[in-house]
Amino acid sequence: MSQDKAAVVVIDHQKLLHFAKECFLSAGFAEECAQLIADSLIEADLRGLNTHGVMRIPMYLKRVKAGLIDPLAQVKVVKENANMAILDAGNGMGQPASMYAMQKAIEKASVATISMVGVRNSNHYGTAAYYSMMAAQQRMLGISCSNTEPLMAAPGGAKAVAGNNPLSIAIPGGKKPDIVVDMAMSAAAIGKIVLAQKKEQSIPLGWATDKMGNDTTDPNQALDGGSLLPFAGPKGYGLSLAVDVLAGILMGSGFGEEVKSPFDDFLHQQKVGHMFMAIDISAFMDLEEFLAKAEALIGQIETAPAAPGVQEVFLPGEIEFNTKCRRLVDGVPLPIGLIDELNAYAQELAVTSRI
Amino acid sequence: MSQDKAAVVVIDHQKLLHFAKECFLSAGFAEECAQLIADSLIEADLRGLNTHGVMRIPMYLKRVKAGLIDPLAQVKVVKENANMAILDAGNGMGQPASMYAMQKAIEKASVATISMVGVRNSNHYGTAAYYSMMAAQQRMLGISCSNTEPLMAAPGGAKAVAGNNPLSIAIPGGKKPDIVVDMAMSAAAIGKIVLAQKKEQSIPLGWATDKMGNDTTDPNQALDGGSLLPFAGPKGYGLSLAVDVLAGILMGSGFGEEVKSPFDDFLHQQKVGHMFMAIDISAFMDLEEFLAKAEALIGQIETAPAAPGVQEVFLPGEIEFNTKCRRLVDGVPLPIGLIDELNAYAQELAVTSRI
Repeated sequence: MSQDKAAVVVIDHQKLLHFAKECFLSAGFAEECAQLIADSLIEADLRGLNTHGVMRIPMYLKRVKAGLIDPLAQVKVVKENANMAILDAGNGMGQPASMYAMQKAIEKASVATISMVGVRNSNHYGTAAYYSMMAAQQRMLGISCSNTEPLMAAPGGAKAVAGNNPLSIAIPGGKKPDIVVDMAMSAAAIGKIVLAQKKEQSIPLGWATDKMGNDTTDPNQALDGGSLLPFAGPKGYGLSLAVDVLAGILMGSGFGEEVKSPFDDFLHQQKVGHMFMAIDISAFMDLEEFLAKAEALIGQIETAPAAPGVQEVFLPGEIEFNTKCRRLVDGVPLPIGLIDELNAYAQELAVTSRI
Repeated sequence: MSQDKAAVVVIDHQKLLHFAKECFLSAGFAEECAQLIADSLIEADLRGLNTHGVMRIPMYLKRVKAGLIDPLAQVKVVKENANMAILDAGNGMGQPASMYAMQKAIEKASVATISMVGVRNSNHYGTAAYYSMMAAQQRMLGISCSNTEPLMAAPGGAKAVAGNNPLSIAIPGGKKPDIVVDMAMSAAAIGKIVLAQKKEQSIPLGWATDKMGNDTTDPNQALDGGSLLPFAGPKGYGLSLAVDVLAGILMGSGFGEEVKSPFDDFLHQQKVGHMFMAIDISAFMDLEEFLAKAEALIGQIETAPAAPGVQEVFLPGEIEFNTKCRRLVDGVPLPIGLIDELNAYAQELAVTSRI
């Protein structure tokens, strides 16, 4: 009897958290570090961003095992003043260094209004929003971005030269959920193209090129040496380069083709850079006034009429907020195929915990 | 004999500058202010952004004449510390207040690394890049953004709730032209839809909705009470709201539906807000090292292969840079129809200068 691998089982998030932490502990991470990484993954699963949740555990730990991520890396401050700092992640996981960096950015902003803290020599940091939201939780504006390996062609180009560089901006929403903008710079995630290939479907023009640089609707051509395309052409391309400059070059980290893929490259360190900003609203205006105005702006959008067939218009981050509220109670749905894979992987690691 | 109104005549940029300045002087602006505004318009014409060049003069002066822009407004500092300031434009033109604001941001950043200077109670400020480029010229990173009146529906919405809020980021390019990202948040400018209507052509899906909120390919439906749509759906929508918060709410300016159109509303002040940031690169790393790395990143893109039929892949802002170099020598091409209109308008203003 064949089991439907895509069928989902709902798992309590605490159980997932425990499982993820055990996996990282077994790979040599210290207690606090394993906890932080596990929390960032489960937060993604709770918010419905499963591509950045527990399904990443095997990829992360494969890199640790290959000696490409140092589980015991110590984050060091390379440069610092009242408004900025550059941290060196020492080729550790992106999450602990990034949490430390945003915490530092928040502390600096609370004294000096605006701060920018970067991280060099890092690795994949999970969802950009995890860090921007730390600032919003402290009633500050938060910005988070990271570079990635080149994945997108420039408009008119035939080779990936620009990262999919995620960017998130979080804004305290007062009595409403915080506004959380979170985007990557490609028109579509590569996972969507892989899915279209599996389903033997075509992809929309504007998602990808073939290996010659021609725009293509064929997922096979896109994945056979082609490149992703930036959203809105020059707009996504321009923002991607700006993030590479802010998170990569300015922080003394890798940039451009120096940054390596966490999925495809098992020979080199990633050399990813991150950038975090915090802005202390209360230096500009009374915080209560700001929150009331943010609520008013949200209200204008919520009360505007919706298009035919649309039940509700959402603010950025609202769907993720609602999903988290639901999943905290109901649990996180995961495909059976993934659960089997993770449990088998745990056995390999001699982790006793199962999901 | 009918003259082709779309045929172009090439005009020396100094002549255009003189003409524009005379027009603003005649409307009651002080010498320095008229010069600043004229320069921002001619810079747009030189860079090929004609929609933000001298063709805007009648719109601006119509608002002055209607008492909706104060030509003699004094910019006042409302709040200030080492890293931030809020200026009140006093309902003057956007350009002089914005130049003053970015200048202040650059001065603050040179001492305190990162700065943010906002402007409230302002008007249309021309191209966002004019100000971000001021920072790049000083070898700093520059960010400029402004809110606008609601022009775009939220994804799934049936009413314009989000501004087309321009955003520009400028990055010193060393021996290469500076990288200048400059974008508005809609999938297409409203001018393109007007043009399609004139030509009786359809528009692509994703540009606009009809008045019910349905996505439409009919420019007539789009312009009859419809809304623009943000680029890349939630991405352009999210960035638009972020700019409205940074440039509008945070600066104590108008936001959301408080901001009025410069084209359609001749009863209310615009109440536009702007936000400018400058980041002092030398606080992070040796400036020469930064520039060498920026050149290297640009080089990676320039030397990547182009798609079939594409002669050259451009960096953000490079086309505008090349256009300016050419037009400084050759002059600015303007349609005869526009030249006639501007000359007739000058006569009305009793300005003796003609183009």
